[in-house]
Order: sequence, then C-alpha cells, then structure tokens
Amino acid sequence: MLTEEMISALIQKTDSKILLLVMDGLGGLAVNGKSEMETAVTPNFDALVKTSAVGLADPVSPGITPGSGPGHLAIFGYDPLKYQIGRGVLEALGAGLEMTHRDVAARGNFCTIDSGDVITDRRAGRMATAINKKLCAKLKREIPAIDDVQLIIQPGIEHRFSVLFRGDDLDDRLTDADPQKEGKKRIPAETLDPAAKKTAVIVNKFLERVKEVLREDHPANAAILRGFAKYPAIPSMHTRFGLRAAAIATYPMYRGLAKLVGMEVLKTGDTFADEIQTLRQHFSSYDFFYLHYKKTDSYGEDGNFEMKVKSIEEVDRHIPELLSLDAEVFAITGDHSSPSALKAHSWHPSPFLLHSKYCGVDVVGRFTERECARGVLGKFQAVEEMTLMLANALKLKKYGA
Amino acid sequence: MLTEEMISALIQKTDSKILLLVMDGLGGLAVNGKSEMETAVTPNFDALVKTSAVGLADPVSPGITPGSGPGHLAIFGYDPLKYQIGRGVLEALGAGLEMTHRDVAARGNFCTIDSGDVITDRRAGRMATAINKKLCAKLKREIPAIDDVQLIIQPGIEHRFSVLFRGDDLDDRLTDADPQKEGKKRIPAETLDPAAKKTAVIVNKFLERVKEVLREDHPANAAILRGFAKYPAIPSMHTRFGLRAAAIATYPMYRGLAKLVGMEVLKTGDTFADEIQTLRQHFSSYDFFYLHYKKTDSYGEDGNFEMKVKSIEEVDRHIPELLSLDAEVFAITGDHSSPSALKAHSWHPSPFLLHSKYCGVDVVGRFTERECARGVLGKFQAVEEMTLMLANALKLKKYGA
Repeated sequence: MLTEEMISALIQKTDSKILLLVMDGLGGLAVNGKSEMETAVTPNFDALVKTSAVGLADPVSPGITPGSGPGHLAIFGYDPLKYQIGRGVLEALGAGLEMTHRDVAARGNFCTIDSGDVITDRRAGRMATAINKKLCAKLKREIPAIDDVQLIIQPGIEHRFSVLFRGDDLDDRLTDADPQKEGKKRIPAETLDPAAKKTAVIVNKFLERVKEVLREDHPANAAILRGFAKYPAIPSMHTRFGLRAAAIATYPMYRGLAKLVGMEVLKTGDTFADEIQTLRQHFSSYDFFYLHYKKTDSYGEDGNFEMKVKSIEEVDRHIPELLSLDAEVFAITGDHSSPSALKAHSWHPSPFLLHSKYCGVDVVGRFTERECARGVLGKFQAVEEMTLMLANALKLKKYGA
Repeated sequence: MLTEEMISALIQKTDSKILLLVMDGLGGLAVNGKSEMETAVTPNFDALVKTSAVGLADPVSPGITPGSGPGHLAIFGYDPLKYQIGRGVLEALGAGLEMTHRDVAARGNFCTIDSGDVITDRRAGRMATAINKKLCAKLKREIPAIDDVQLIIQPGIEHRFSVLFRGDDLDDRLTDADPQKEGKKRIPAETLDPAAKKTAVIVNKFLERVKEVLREDHPANAAILRGFAKYPAIPSMHTRFGLRAAAIATYPMYRGLAKLVGMEVLKTGDTFADEIQTLRQHFSSYDFFYLHYKKTDSYGEDGNFEMKVKSIEEVDRHIPELLSLDAEVFAITGDHSSPSALKAHSWHPSPFLLHSKYCGVDVVGRFTERECARGVLGKFQAVEEMTLMLANALKLKKYGA
C-alpha cells in the first residue's frame, strides 16, 4: 500500500464532489435465511446498484471487531492501527465536549464507597440520568479548577460522566484511578511516565475534592476515572487529501470523530431528512461530505431486526434525493457491521457501494452482504475506500511515469 | 494487520470450542474439467456449506508454495515469514523424535565414498529401509556421544536419517557437511558464526566416527549432514490466544508441528475413525482441537487423482459425527494445496470453510476451489484464519473505543 506521503503527492484538485453516506453498523447476519439488508424492500438501492460497483471492506482486518473510532478513521482514509483514539477522548466526543490539544480526557463513574474508602458499588446504584446531571452541576460549581488546570465536566447516561482536564503540560500516561472491582479501596492514578507527574497530582486532588463535595450524596459519594487520553494529533483531510470536507451527523460522537480529521461540522437537526436538508444547503461549499446515519447501528445493537430493516428502508427512500445532488462520487458503506443477531459491533466486513461515471459496473442485483461478496471491488481494506473515492472523483494523478 | 501483542490483548476467555479439521493438501486442480473436490461425491459437505461461510486462503502469499511447516504455522495463526522451522527440525519431527531446546537437528544421508573420500553415490544405492534401520542401530550402539554431546539417531526412508546433537552451548549456524554433488570430496561443516565453533567440532568428529564405524558397510560407508537447525522458540497458543489446544494426528510430523506451538498431543490410532474417537474422548478437556487428515496430501503427491477423490469422500462421511460434537466453531481447510496434476505441494490458495452461529452464510452450493473463490470470506491470508475462528467463537474483544 502507498504511504500517506505517496498518496498526498498524487492529489490533484478538481471541482468534483464526493458524498460518503455512512450507514452506521450497516452489515448484518441472516436470521431465518435473510439478513437485514436482504429483508429490506429497497427499490432505490436495487436501481442504484445496477450502475455502481460494490465490494466488501474489512474495517481493520479479518476477524477484528472495531469500535466506532477505528471504524470511522478507516473509512476516512486513516490507518486505524496507526491512529488511535483513547477511550476518554471518544467518551468526551460522544458527550458533545469540544476538546483542545491542551486537554486530557477521562471517563468517570459515580460510585459508592464506605467509611474505609472501599468501593461497594462501582455504579452507585445505576442512578437515573437526571440525578447524574444534578451531581455534575454540583461538581462544576464546586470544582471549576484544580490549581492552574480547568475542569470541564459533562454528564453521560446513568452513572457515567466525562471530564476534561485543561491546562499546560498535561500528559495522559496514567493508570486508571479505578480498582476495577468492588470490595477494593479506591486507588489514585499513577504515572506511567515521569512527564505525567503534574497530571497525576491534579487528577488525584480532583478525586479527593469530589469525595468531599459528594460526602452527603450517598450512594453517589465518590468517583472513579479511567481511560485518560489526550486529543490525538491527526493530519487533516485537507492536508492529506486536499479536501474541503464537511460532516453532517445528528450524534455528537460522529461530529467529534469528523472534527478529529479536520472536517467542518455543519449544524443540523435530529432526523435524516434534516441532515439531507443541511447537505443541500451547503452542497456548493465543500468537496467532500460525510453524511452519518445512526439508526442502523442503534437497532442492530438493540437486537431489533425488524427496526434495522425499517431503518434501511428509510434510507432507501432518500436515495433519489441524494442522487439528484449529482455528486461525481456517491459512496455508501458502514463503519463496521452490527448484526441484530449479535446485538453488538461485529467483525464482519462492511458492504461498500461506489457510484460514479467511472466506477465500473457489477453484475450484482441488490445491495446486500452476499451480493457485495461477488462485486467487482472484491474484498479489501476499508482504509482503501478513500483512494477509490478520490480516484473516481479524478482527484488522483498517475503513480510513476 | 494487528501485531501479535494487539491480538493477544483482545483475547477473552469463553467456554466455546473451536474444531479445526486440516485436510492436508486439500486443494487441487481440474483434470478433464473437474478438480478432486469437484469430482468427489460429498453430500455432507454440500449440506454443511449451506450454513457456512467460505473463502480461499493463501498460506504464505500468491504464487508461493509452502512446505508443511509454514503451511501449518499459518493456519495456527503464526506468521510463516516470522517463525521459521529449519529443515533438520522438520525432518526430526517427521521421524518422531522429541526435541528439546538444547538440541541441534540435522538431516542425514548414508552415502558411498571411495578411498580418496570422494562421494561416488550421495544415496548409497537407495538402500532398503530395513538396511537403513540396521545401520542406524549400529551407529547408536557405537557412537552414543561425542565428548559431552549426546547423539540421538533415527532412521528414515531408504538412505535418509535424522540426528539430534543434544548438549550445552550448541548452535545451528553451520554450513552443510555436504558438497551437494557426486565426484566431490566430503566436506566438514563450517561455522557461520563463532558461537557455533563447538557444534562444528562435534559434528565433524561425528562424521569421522561414522566413517570408521561403517568402513566395512559399503556402499553405505559414510554420511553427509545438512539443514542444521535448533528447535525454534515460538510462543504457545495458550500465551498468544488463551487457548487450551490439543492435536490429533496419525503422522509424527504433524504432532511435532502442533507441539511446536504448545499444543497437547493426544495419543490416537492409525485411522481417521481412530482420530475422531480420540476427539470424542477428550472433547470436554480443551477449547481448540487440531484434527489432521493426511491422505488428501499423500494421494495428491502420488498423483493419484482417483484416490484423492476417495479420501475427500471418506472425510465427507465423517462430517455428521464431527458436527454432532457441537463445537461453536467448526473450520475445514488445507495447510496448502497438493494437486494430483502436479504430484507435489502447490501455491494454489486453500479452500476454507467456517461454520458457526455467526459466520454469515454464502450463496455457494459446494465446498470446492471454484465455489470458495466466490465465498463471502473472499481471498485472504491463511494466518488470518485464527482471528476469524476466535471472532466466531466470541473469544475476541472489540478493538478500540
């Protein structure tokens, strides 16, 4: 495979536009003989596939189930083994926090401790999210900063929250401040590198302050933190691929992932129709669009076969509208599979559809896992989707004389 | 591809079981329009393939014909370019010798020399194996050791034998004690590294002693040695994949290869039915089983198309019994192809069949080379079969957040 530098050297600017529709967790598994994609009634996909090339893409490599981070990095053209996004960062992005390069992010749990600082419940009884919000508001008010480090706290679902430590000379090489098991004492974060000394001091002071502030809030009378991570330094899509890229996503995590690779995040509403409206409005201003559709993943993770089928059908109904924009390249894929049968992300390769004037055309009849397995694009690595899209947009020069 | 450490970090223990049936040299080539697999009548494979995913796996890379060593290492999940098994070791394993990490192994030939120490026949007239056995017994009796190094000698077929040099500070960086051509003088082993000095002295003393002991045994009145090799240090399947792995094979070489990666070798009989009986007896005690079937390779190497077909049919008859064990993952493949038309190992990718609750299902109708070429698993590297099997056994966690 070409190095990043080799690909960047081949980039040529053209006016052509690339529209990448990511149907999160698209791929599935057959239940009663047919997968979600096979069960869905999709007249528009069926028509589109006749003038498209298809294949199956491994997000990372065969058998490896990716998280949303590596899954997305790959389809954005970034090697998911080279660029890694820490847990704390992904959680912060998912919580809608705006990160800077001065921040260290961590995932937190409210927990219950006894008088001897022993953790008796790592989830503080899985409180209602509304209570979590009140507790986070209290922490924000009472602990705006530790020394010269600013704290940004954001509630999550039930007992979960995100925290950003924002300041100079912070470092994420810390162990989790989490004994992992109940019946054990709380533990402080420890340095994995001397450069993280200051951060460890701040983090541990913070956890002691949390204990003081929450002393009357049993069962949520302390916190544990894990997954310390800095915002990764990733070259932008503009630097690497010469693209003015825009992202349209209803969920904060996907907007955050897009921002990680330097995309402009466009303000949009709550529905797929809202997203398409946003796409229309901004279509003349960018040359790459990442359009994210979440429900295929949500219903897959819920194990809801029927609703995953319906969400595929919902996207299908919008295909004519997306085609009417006349992007030179229109690609559709998932960042990973989420079969209802597994109720989780899975290792199965993602169906990939590429539509352009120059894509070559398949003999396949439908856009499904099995049909993509015999597509002209074959089985390939998801990280190569970007070069395929760029090539079809005539944005890549010849390699070698 | 993920590094070994990255894969090991994703391992999670579950009670699920993986059964890997290796039909040695399975893949073939069409003669009169149909390959051995296509000619065989295989109702059970045909039924199994309908609920399985298939593909084609390159043992090493396209066009490269593997020996049994790299072929097996790959399907056990070890990069065959990183882990190499010396010729002497493979020969010793094939001869049924138990090696230790103190040993240097070599392959030997009995040969004929004239009074000037010139080799007149590198194979000493391709003697009957029975004579070889007598000569080896004599060497064992007369040369139990050289200095502080113990000798273990094992007869092979015709003029071939194996020898282990067992002692401290031995090293395999030696040239062959073999001029390769007839009409040339015998030559001593020479050091390729100063650390091999002691070994060179011992090896050359041994060859002089052999000449003395065999002086009356014309035409087998001397020996040549080549392929000096130490037992390789390979992390066990337990270390790398968290598997309690067991091997069932009728031939010593395959038992030896399994032992190299830390599998427990189960005692079994001479037939495939014996092997399955052994599998049944021990099924509750391990979570990975390597079941080796030899005849597909033997008949392929003999160029016996008909008998290779019949051996595929023999395995087919046992499929219901294997399925009745209800392993969560059941995989079938070859370590390499052995087309009857070539009478040898070949570079053709191996058909691979994966059966599990979550394997995804193909549209293919039979388990053959051509059908596997359009399977959902596509074309992939055999070393990735292990991650696919582990994923399907739900023994791998998600990569990245």
